[in-house]
Amino acid sequence: MTDTEEMLETVPTGVPLSAADLAAAIDACLRCLQTCTTCANADLAEDDIAEMGVCARLCINCADVCDVTARLLSRPAQWDEFVVHRLLEACVRSCQNSAEECARHAHHHRHCAICEKVCRACAKACGDLLEDEAFEQLRKLAGA
Amino acid sequence: MTDTEEMLETVPTGVPLSAADLAAAIDACLRCLQTCTTCANADLAEDDIAEMGVCARLCINCADVCDVTARLLSRPAQWDEFVVHRLLEACVRSCQNSAEECARHAHHHRHCAICEKVCRACAKACGDLLEDEAFEQLRKLAGA
Amino acid sequence: MTDTEEMLETVPTGVPLSAADLAAAIDACLRCLQTCTTCANADLAEDDIAEMGVCARLCINCADVCDVTARLLSRPAQWDEFVVHRLLEACVRSCQNSAEECARHAHHHRHCAICEKVCRACAKACGDLLEDEAFEQLRKLAGA
Amino acid sequence: MTDTEEMLETVPTGVPLSAADLAAAIDACLRCLQTCTTCANADLAEDDIAEMGVCARLCINCADVCDVTARLLSRPAQWDEFVVHRLLEACVRSCQNSAEECARHAHHHRHCAICEKVCRACAKACGDLLEDEAFEQLRKLAGA
Repeated sequence: MTDTEEMLETVPTGVPLSAADLAAAIDACLRCLQTCTTCANADLAEDDIAEMGVCARLCINCADVCDVTARLLSRPAQWDEFVVHRLLEACVRSCQNSAEECARHAHHHRHCAICEKVCRACAKACGDLLEDEAFEQLRKLAGA
Repeated sequence: MTDTEEMLETVPTGVPLSAADLAAAIDACLRCLQTCTTCANADLAEDDIAEMGVCARLCINCADVCDVTARLLSRPAQWDEFVVHRLLEACVRSCQNSAEECARHAHHHRHCAICEKVCRACAKACGDLLEDEAFEQLRKLAGA
Repeated sequence: MTDTEEMLETVPTGVPLSAADLAAAIDACLRCLQTCTTCANADLAEDDIAEMGVCARLCINCADVCDVTARLLSRPAQWDEFVVHRLLEACVRSCQNSAEECARHAHHHRHCAICEKVCRACAKACGDLLEDEAFEQLRKLAGA
Repeated sequence: MTDTEEMLETVPTGVPLSAADLAAAIDACLRCLQTCTTCANADLAEDDIAEMGVCARLCINCADVCDVTARLLSRPAQWDEFVVHRLLEACVRSCQNSAEECARHAHHHRHCAICEKVCRACAKACGDLLEDEAFEQLRKLAGA
């Protein structure tokens, strides 16, 4: 059990979905915040910066969305199912956007190769959480 | 025209929806970030802290969601309609949650009275933006 | 009196320095967070992006430092003089860095001209706060 | 080598101090952001919330300072030695404050016991970085 999962287990109100899955999503968001922040910084120092503007812009956005998602997921004692659901959706999409753009540069920029991998892992962890039965009602409302 | 709107007008890609409405939503989010941050801090210093825990928890969440919403809205040159839409939805709900709880304490805590007002203004500004025709496709998909 | 100053006045512990100066610094930081965020976004969409990399990198840093400074300054009920002092120093420097780089591009990029102005105002507001007698002890320790 | 260290090694400008130490500090800040965020949330859901207000307030501040420190440290391509130094100092102090308060509650709140441990690790990692020779000039100026 990681520190994150152990912390979640201590919250007196309990956790509204699987603590292991929740911890995995939080840790994936924090990793992605780190990777996207450095990837954007490296993009802007590359000789081919003119090709890297989109990547930097996407990674900057992704870092911010991962940050707030990690923060909200870390507060199970004041859970608003709708807010968390919307943030997870925004996070999955932001990570997919960054991963796709990083993939285009992965062969010549090592930071993009790593960032693509970390973004995909974060999209997967947050996507898995969206499948939790806690969100079933919201999925029904969306006709999904 | 405010600094925010003037800044948005300078972005070379243009702004994907009304710059005035967008600037109003950004400024409302920044005001709400400030007010919620101080309201939560004050809650935890009140003699009746035992009654103020929910308010503090909601305002802490609201501040973080307003912060990321202001950041993403401030970056029109890399707009992902879906991400922005989901953040706006999360922001409207977070502001409503804080406003409703603050309303319960507004008669005896002045910070809650101000915070309620600012949260309602932010929910309104972000809700107005969600009505923009830029999001029509997403509204149709949701069957709304 | 602004909302920010009025909020600060409601905190039951009181405010450890001038509420008006404190509110001015908070509001300047929030304005600077907005301006720097949009300036960096616009930089990366300009045709001369190769010339704008340093500006984008500085403005991204400045936005983050202004954000955390606004947050900590907004919590007078748990003031750590040393932490606030160090953040203010980091904020003044970050704003100066962005202002100087933006000044180099102000004649051909309108976002840089506005951003320079807003960064200088934030450096001034935070610098004024550092002169408050609340920080006298820390100034003496630094031999300043 | 962790993802963080590997990312730092890819930045074209190089890293102005030991990449391993820098990565350790970044990862410690991200862990501390998580732990402090959940600790504050749990504090406000405890039956003895009246005793936990100081802990929550300190952990909320610590989370924000760790967040911005992790972000700035993750951007070696636009390093301002002075800004990084001041953030590291603010971060060490914030972590010490949280650790000391959490220690008072560690015997009866498991989240405080974990949070104390993680805060001390973060204070250590950031303190180690402050000892790097890159900051020698700043240490001399401070007469330390």
